[in-house]
Amino acid sequence: MGLRINLNADIAEGWGAYDIGDDPALMRIIKSANVACGFHAGDHNTMHRICMLAKELGVSIGAHPGFNDLWGFGRRPIKMAPKDIEYMTAYQIGALQAVAQYAGLKVTHLKAHGALNNMAAVDPEYAMAIGRAIKTVDRDIIYVVLCGSEMETACKKLGLPIAREGFADRSYEEDGNLTPRSIAGSVYKDPEKALAQCLRMIQDGEIVSRQGKIVKVNVETICLHGDEPTAVHVAGEVAKGLAKAGIEQVTLPEMLA
Amino acid sequence: MGLRINLNADIAEGWGAYDIGDDPALMRIIKSANVACGFHAGDHNTMHRICMLAKELGVSIGAHPGFNDLWGFGRRPIKMAPKDIEYMTAYQIGALQAVAQYAGLKVTHLKAHGALNNMAAVDPEYAMAIGRAIKTVDRDIIYVVLCGSEMETACKKLGLPIAREGFADRSYEEDGNLTPRSIAGSVYKDPEKALAQCLRMIQDGEIVSRQGKIVKVNVETICLHGDEPTAVHVAGEVAKGLAKAGIEQVTLPEMLA
Amino acid sequence: MGLRINLNADIAEGWGAYDIGDDPALMRIIKSANVACGFHAGDHNTMHRICMLAKELGVSIGAHPGFNDLWGFGRRPIKMAPKDIEYMTAYQIGALQAVAQYAGLKVTHLKAHGALNNMAAVDPEYAMAIGRAIKTVDRDIIYVVLCGSEMETACKKLGLPIAREGFADRSYEEDGNLTPRSIAGSVYKDPEKALAQCLRMIQDGEIVSRQGKIVKVNVETICLHGDEPTAVHVAGEVAKGLAKAGIEQVTLPEMLA
Amino acid sequence: MGLRINLNADIAEGWGAYDIGDDPALMRIIKSANVACGFHAGDHNTMHRICMLAKELGVSIGAHPGFNDLWGFGRRPIKMAPKDIEYMTAYQIGALQAVAQYAGLKVTHLKAHGALNNMAAVDPEYAMAIGRAIKTVDRDIIYVVLCGSEMETACKKLGLPIAREGFADRSYEEDGNLTPRSIAGSVYKDPEKALAQCLRMIQDGEIVSRQGKIVKVNVETICLHGDEPTAVHVAGEVAKGLAKAGIEQVTLPEMLA
Repeated sequence: MGLRINLNADIAEGWGAYDIGDDPALMRIIKSANVACGFHAGDHNTMHRICMLAKELGVSIGAHPGFNDLWGFGRRPIKMAPKDIEYMTAYQIGALQAVAQYAGLKVTHLKAHGALNNMAAVDPEYAMAIGRAIKTVDRDIIYVVLCGSEMETACKKLGLPIAREGFADRSYEEDGNLTPRSIAGSVYKDPEKALAQCLRMIQDGEIVSRQGKIVKVNVETICLHGDEPTAVHVAGEVAKGLAKAGIEQVTLPEMLA
Repeated sequence: MGLRINLNADIAEGWGAYDIGDDPALMRIIKSANVACGFHAGDHNTMHRICMLAKELGVSIGAHPGFNDLWGFGRRPIKMAPKDIEYMTAYQIGALQAVAQYAGLKVTHLKAHGALNNMAAVDPEYAMAIGRAIKTVDRDIIYVVLCGSEMETACKKLGLPIAREGFADRSYEEDGNLTPRSIAGSVYKDPEKALAQCLRMIQDGEIVSRQGKIVKVNVETICLHGDEPTAVHVAGEVAKGLAKAGIEQVTLPEMLA
Repeated sequence: MGLRINLNADIAEGWGAYDIGDDPALMRIIKSANVACGFHAGDHNTMHRICMLAKELGVSIGAHPGFNDLWGFGRRPIKMAPKDIEYMTAYQIGALQAVAQYAGLKVTHLKAHGALNNMAAVDPEYAMAIGRAIKTVDRDIIYVVLCGSEMETACKKLGLPIAREGFADRSYEEDGNLTPRSIAGSVYKDPEKALAQCLRMIQDGEIVSRQGKIVKVNVETICLHGDEPTAVHVAGEVAKGLAKAGIEQVTLPEMLA
Repeated sequence: MGLRINLNADIAEGWGAYDIGDDPALMRIIKSANVACGFHAGDHNTMHRICMLAKELGVSIGAHPGFNDLWGFGRRPIKMAPKDIEYMTAYQIGALQAVAQYAGLKVTHLKAHGALNNMAAVDPEYAMAIGRAIKTVDRDIIYVVLCGSEMETACKKLGLPIAREGFADRSYEEDGNLTPRSIAGSVYKDPEKALAQCLRMIQDGEIVSRQGKIVKVNVETICLHGDEPTAVHVAGEVAKGLAKAGIEQVTLPEMLA
């Protein structure tokens, strides 16, 4: 069997009168959609629309819970009690599960959004809170984690299915973390560069850090972004390039099967 | 078998720093709790706390969806597209289902809140929207409806389990609708009066309207309020009075079994 | 002195991660901006940015208060107590006044948004509530009203400066009201048609209704829309056409001076 | 002239269906009210009610801006750009200024709420952001600051009127900071203890830390809390005790006159 990979993206972040990103285009590129659940972005109408589209396109769906912070789009770090995070996460999973029934779909993965994801990567209590919510609501849900993060540790401790995530269009530091967005060049706008990083991750299990160091990373899923003007183009080129290289693109459940 | 009735109340409407009503007292009086789902009131923490308490006390739980309108506490009539209401309702059911898993409980009924309930009582599209959400998410969920309302019609059309609701502490008009709160005397503060109305509903299948007319009403559940200063007292006296009269109080699923 | 007109548009409706309409383009076409105040849309950052731009471009600014309803973008009709509307309006005016001080600008007009505007057009209590808020906070603020509406009556009753508003790109009914958006053809996408309607309003004080009837309308300001894909193009063509016809475009305070 | 002090409290944190604290009682004890402005708590209706009451009772009013975070009641630390904080603060001041006009009152001070206040105490950028908002909107507004905090530094740098704040019912650490609420005994429920601390602050310009160390503090205002069950009682006893000791209680503007 040849090489395989899952491509995921954050989806469904528009709501009401507001639109953001090009969901219809991105949904045709990825195999798994991280669906915003109405706390940091999105609403029940957008969730419904995306679930129906996911069904049509054969894209698997996951909950993309974030802080209850529309003003900050879930990007503002907020300190919360772990139990608060846990129930907040469970709530959002459940909301998506219900809406997904309109499409006859199951919620098969979870990826935390923005600041919640960043905080859970380094805070074991946040990481466990998210994991416990998954375990309570549906222990078959795949926990998408940053490689080598506290989320990976939490996921293993709880015995949940895991998908380690790499990034196509983001530069890495030599400790394996992402280069902060505030540093110039941290987001690749050149599809070639993004594709090269993906190929190296998939074929060789490594990335080259901003500092030039080779870092080992094993990933089951690669995140494509949709909210930069160039992002959909980059995403599309990456997907095409992977196909050309003979790498099969599959949904997250297929990836872990 | 003797007479039986279900007593329900709106619960879990506090959140964050805010508290409203005396949930712990009321939960010991009722047999079914209508749990606010974070749109007009409540949040994931309150939902969790109430689910755990419901488990402990043998109270069945239902979703109590409302408009996404914290400012108006779900009491401001809002015009929405029926599909919007439908997905909004599905979302809220799912959120509660997930949180209820912490207590190992199923969501067994749904009662719409405030203005959503009032509008659905007279608007067939609103009534159907709520019913369709139930049907999609879990068709075993009991739809709590106002007697003789459009909700009753919708519920029957969709083939959902139904519980018709009466009110202990509210005066009725001769057309079978509740007397608006703006009219003096529309809310009974006298437990005797509330108890008498309940007994007549349960034993004789009728109420006496504000105008003195006898109106036939068949109800499976009676709503007790908790958000007036005198409400918990009234609720407690009603429950005691029913017990004294030999009327068994059961959960909604038991009532329909 | 030749003919003059004020062109206004709704502005500043993006916030946080969300953007809507093409504010920078529209701000270069209009002379008065209706600035969303954070209740139905917008936030303090967007308000600040627009105030600074208004200063630079010589555009006068007005408060554009709406319902506290981000989910509905202020387009959902909501029933509220008149006092509630009044204080809600005062709050939004004050918020903008404070932010406008960064640009050294005064808030010189007010135009209610969406459903609030529509409801105030026909409900004297809503219309007076908005007017009373203006009168309390700054009685020099110009109340922008729909011609012949309850707002016009309220404005005169309260002795506030008034600007009657017409629409460039909306069809009218023969009673002088706008054709509802749900009816095909109610929004003009053809700049010629919009310009013709504007010229007739300004030069002849009349419009031709959808039914072909001539209706008298005297307006001090004409609303250009920005949230349709074709809107900025239509707006730009109307402004150019008016200039070509020798009609001077001025700010609202200049229009009333 | 004898000793004088200002007593302040956080007020107006209820809204919609929610109530919190005993505003009417507290307003009769204090001389300056910190009025929540609708971001972390409160709304235009509550603001209006409190402004009218303040007018009646001779209480001076101040803006009490907080994070846009109803869910966390402004107590969750949130990382924001300083400019964002600045405009958010300006917005809230302006909103209160407008509503205060119903009572013919000026907003004469500002005290930041909860996490915003705590963060501004130690973060010079947060402290300056709040100060700059004051300076832009009304440079006569008194900036209420924690003694020895970054807010005090910012206030002096900007040349704003300053009121340094002490706490009646909170224990201090030996570095002059408040003992965190998580530590037992950090909130005094004994009115004697709170009064003794106030007297020592006012008469001797010092407090005794939890560790027994004497720390110099010069304050123009003392904060009384209202949201603990015992708080109004403590506040009332403190006010009475100060009066008995011949210490005059004045509004903040009087205190700085």
